[in-house]
Amino acid sequence: MDQRTLDSTETATLIAADKVEGTNVYNRLGEHLGSIDNVMIDKMSGKVAYAVMSFGGFLGIGERYHPMPWGMLTYDTAQGGYVVDIDKKMLTGAPNYEASAVPNYGDRAWGKKVHDYYGVTPYWY
Amino acid sequence: MDQRTLDSTETATLIAADKVEGTNVYNRLGEHLGSIDNVMIDKMSGKVAYAVMSFGGFLGIGERYHPMPWGMLTYDTAQGGYVVDIDKKMLTGAPNYEASAVPNYGDRAWGKKVHDYYGVTPYWY
Repeated sequence: MDQRTLDSTETATLIAADKVEGTNVYNRLGEHLGSIDNVMIDKMSGKVAYAVMSFGGFLGIGERYHPMPWGMLTYDTAQGGYVVDIDKKMLTGAPNYEASAVPNYGDRAWGKKVHDYYGVTPYWY
Repeated sequence: MDQRTLDSTETATLIAADKVEGTNVYNRLGEHLGSIDNVMIDKMSGKVAYAVMSFGGFLGIGERYHPMPWGMLTYDTAQGGYVVDIDKKMLTGAPNYEASAVPNYGDRAWGKKVHDYYGVTPYWY
């Protein structure tokens, strides 16, 4: 159970998209991987399809974006951020892009590739 | 099908939480009801629990917030915003609050009341 202070943007069971954005992401070794840049919602089902993690770059230049299935993120109170069970090497090979080459998030072949990489069932099933 | 320009924050099937926020909300008569202030996500399931619409007030004073089940919102390209099937009178009686009295979003009795008012099945079912 999440023990962050409960306020208008978070309760034990709910969290505001605003609060997810900007939250740091670590792996199980405590290495900082990046932070959540955005949350993509499936319009029909209302399910979060991806939490998009960004890292690297300076003033937006060279920054890379990693779409991650929502279920991969676990909030860790000790870290004060999300923990995902991937090492840096796995992250390097993961589907990612830069701001100038955003993939078509609606393309299910692309989406399946992302989910397959992390071994997670796609949000549309 | 949504015909807004497809960019990195939206495709035909997905939309960034960032883009939902700030979008205007109208009723079927074309009356402006407010705009989406925030999106509340159910942590476990990753489902959007509520789109929180705000309206009224000035510089945040007197503003009122209406939590609405995600499924109530339909994007209308002609309006350039979401359309919900409620009239102003129904909205006045709907569950709402001001910034100084935020309800406990995690309280299912409260959540059920919100969903019942709009005749929508709660997100946790």
